[in-house]
Amino acid sequence: MKATILTIGTEILFGSIVNTNSVFLSKELNALGVDVLRHITVGDNRGRLLKALQQSYEDCELIITTGGLGPTEDDLTKETIAEYFGTPLEEHPEELETLRNWFGSQGRVMAENNVKQAWFPRGSVILPNPNGTAPGFYYTDGNRHIYVLPGPPRENVPMFRDHVAPRLSAHDDGYLFYKIVRTTGIGESDLETRLMDLIDGQTDPTIATYAKQFECSFRVASKRPTLKEAQDAVEECMVKIRERIGEYIYSEDDKDLLVIVMDKLKEKGIKIASAESITGGMFAKMITDVPGASKVFSKGIVTYSNEAKMSELGVSSLTLEKNGAISPQTAEEMVRGLSRKSGCRICVSVTGNAGPDADEGKPVGQFFVGLMNGDEVTVKEFRANRNNRNYIREFACYQMVKMVHNVLRNID
Amino acid sequence: MKATILTIGTEILFGSIVNTNSVFLSKELNALGVDVLRHITVGDNRGRLLKALQQSYEDCELIITTGGLGPTEDDLTKETIAEYFGTPLEEHPEELETLRNWFGSQGRVMAENNVKQAWFPRGSVILPNPNGTAPGFYYTDGNRHIYVLPGPPRENVPMFRDHVAPRLSAHDDGYLFYKIVRTTGIGESDLETRLMDLIDGQTDPTIATYAKQFECSFRVASKRPTLKEAQDAVEECMVKIRERIGEYIYSEDDKDLLVIVMDKLKEKGIKIASAESITGGMFAKMITDVPGASKVFSKGIVTYSNEAKMSELGVSSLTLEKNGAISPQTAEEMVRGLSRKSGCRICVSVTGNAGPDADEGKPVGQFFVGLMNGDEVTVKEFRANRNNRNYIREFACYQMVKMVHNVLRNID
Repeated sequence: MKATILTIGTEILFGSIVNTNSVFLSKELNALGVDVLRHITVGDNRGRLLKALQQSYEDCELIITTGGLGPTEDDLTKETIAEYFGTPLEEHPEELETLRNWFGSQGRVMAENNVKQAWFPRGSVILPNPNGTAPGFYYTDGNRHIYVLPGPPRENVPMFRDHVAPRLSAHDDGYLFYKIVRTTGIGESDLETRLMDLIDGQTDPTIATYAKQFECSFRVASKRPTLKEAQDAVEECMVKIRERIGEYIYSEDDKDLLVIVMDKLKEKGIKIASAESITGGMFAKMITDVPGASKVFSKGIVTYSNEAKMSELGVSSLTLEKNGAISPQTAEEMVRGLSRKSGCRICVSVTGNAGPDADEGKPVGQFFVGLMNGDEVTVKEFRANRNNRNYIREFACYQMVKMVHNVLRNID
Repeated sequence: MKATILTIGTEILFGSIVNTNSVFLSKELNALGVDVLRHITVGDNRGRLLKALQQSYEDCELIITTGGLGPTEDDLTKETIAEYFGTPLEEHPEELETLRNWFGSQGRVMAENNVKQAWFPRGSVILPNPNGTAPGFYYTDGNRHIYVLPGPPRENVPMFRDHVAPRLSAHDDGYLFYKIVRTTGIGESDLETRLMDLIDGQTDPTIATYAKQFECSFRVASKRPTLKEAQDAVEECMVKIRERIGEYIYSEDDKDLLVIVMDKLKEKGIKIASAESITGGMFAKMITDVPGASKVFSKGIVTYSNEAKMSELGVSSLTLEKNGAISPQTAEEMVRGLSRKSGCRICVSVTGNAGPDADEGKPVGQFFVGLMNGDEVTVKEFRANRNNRNYIREFACYQMVKMVHNVLRNID
């Protein structure tokens, strides 16, 4: 099945927001075996939306739109789709009721222009939206399937997962199975070179590598008449891949390194604490992004100033004076102080320079990670090769996670 | 002048990479007064690229493409564009020379398929690429202008700035001026209702509202023969807008609430510290995202466990037992403890339940923010209305920033 993803949103044409919906939908559709032929983004403009629909209709059985379902006058997605398919809009009283109740539950009175959000093209299947006021809908003219979703990701992501994905297999043929394999410590071209003969002249399974920030992933995919056949083809290919680059693989099911770390900490009942300077809380934030973090993460200390490094972690003023805050010595004293005060088995510290300028003569991008596993201390130096604050901080957090992962790897 | 941005790249259709080129080009083109009518992304596919060109040609004087200029067989952007405009490709010997030299300077021998990168449609102006092997080009048939740029952002960004932007004014008419105005505390439909008569039947200036997470922005834009006229038209409209909703406006130049807060803290030399439970370091991370945060942010304490709340902030065990960790009393004791240990003028604390389940009988999404301004303590209760961990945590951080903003507003 072939698809067009059609985004309706002026903010995207202004460059004010990034079109993350197309990224999400592309990933999901590809994973479900749908070929995404194109993305189109237009503003809230009837003529251009009609043209985009027409172009999509010509070669795609599936059209997924996001955006333009708001209550205001410039939102005209539904009107235009109804016009394109030659079907009238009609009010759904039960949706109007749901809408009024939703506003009531928020302690608000519904504005009259919201009534529009209960109108749908005749023959539509309504897709409920528990996360906002605009329901989506599904419509087919017998030849083409169109799913119309709201724009905000927090609304369209669950709507796609709950109401679109389950319907798609009914329109589809064949079974796709794939694995997304994650590696760390090997670059994309090195990876490609080692798998070259498998990649060259591939038809099925196919291998596609892609560089993510700080690491490389690849996807091994097969589409066969039965799911079993597709799974077998992928596994057969994986056997060869593991022989060549097994040491770099840390996940065969697209799991984040951080999630793997957190799962292992939980499983082993190991507590962790953090002391951050350069990353300013980003590591603690990442850890606590994971539900259930409270089971393993007790405390984090963000010591952004020298005073805080001394008062909170007992770093000595002599060390700060002699070696500077950005030094292996400071990283070590930070992690030792943290270990004393937290009593956690694994403690991790970081200090460095996120830029924009050299600091204490230390270049932008240089940082030190300290790690304690019980009594054993390791300090490593790193250097991010970009003068980009966010990049450097994320790179530092990645190295912290990687060092914790290395420790956990050796704990049975 | 109207434009289409046309991206050629299969990775984008897989959702493997984000289409940042379209974001960059949209921002730049809008800033130069060009109306971006649509984005289209297709893979390296002749038929679909031809269709996309045709659709763009119909209503846009300007087409900018990125991607598909590599040396391999699947890169067919140039061939297809030449075909569309009915002009042959021809070799540019001096470009071939440049290419060979570039490889030489990298200590590499040029592969034969790279020769292709020195072929261009007859009549093109070559756009040099000091950052890669694929030069871009400009072509016009007299009616339409097409700029063809390489895909990697580190190549196309400088090429656009150095060779496309300076050429655009020669094709253009009129000047665009706009303001992006940010508000907090008013919803999108309420905002529209209050500005309805200004929005209705608007031609120039135009007002477009859009909902961001937790707040609403709108854009007031005018395009006139001179920049001065456009600026005056926007200001005249802004006078009317300020009369109606001035109290909700916090920025008229698209500045983040957090950036405004940080600027004010720096300007006044006020120090801030944070004590976080539910947000797990996210607030500290946000603060330290801003360069120069070290001038105002001294320390942050992430007290994820009850033990940490007691040992780090001196919250009493009695309070935790009687009122629970998720209570106004705990938020207050957290912020008082933080104030004692940090000595910062502004201290902010947060405790709550980010889900996924009720905790101590407190519903998912409930949280309390404590704020100290000198000796004065305020504690407020909030409730995020979604069971989404990330949403709840971001919402909590937003409320923390907003409470700090409210305090700073009253400091001259």
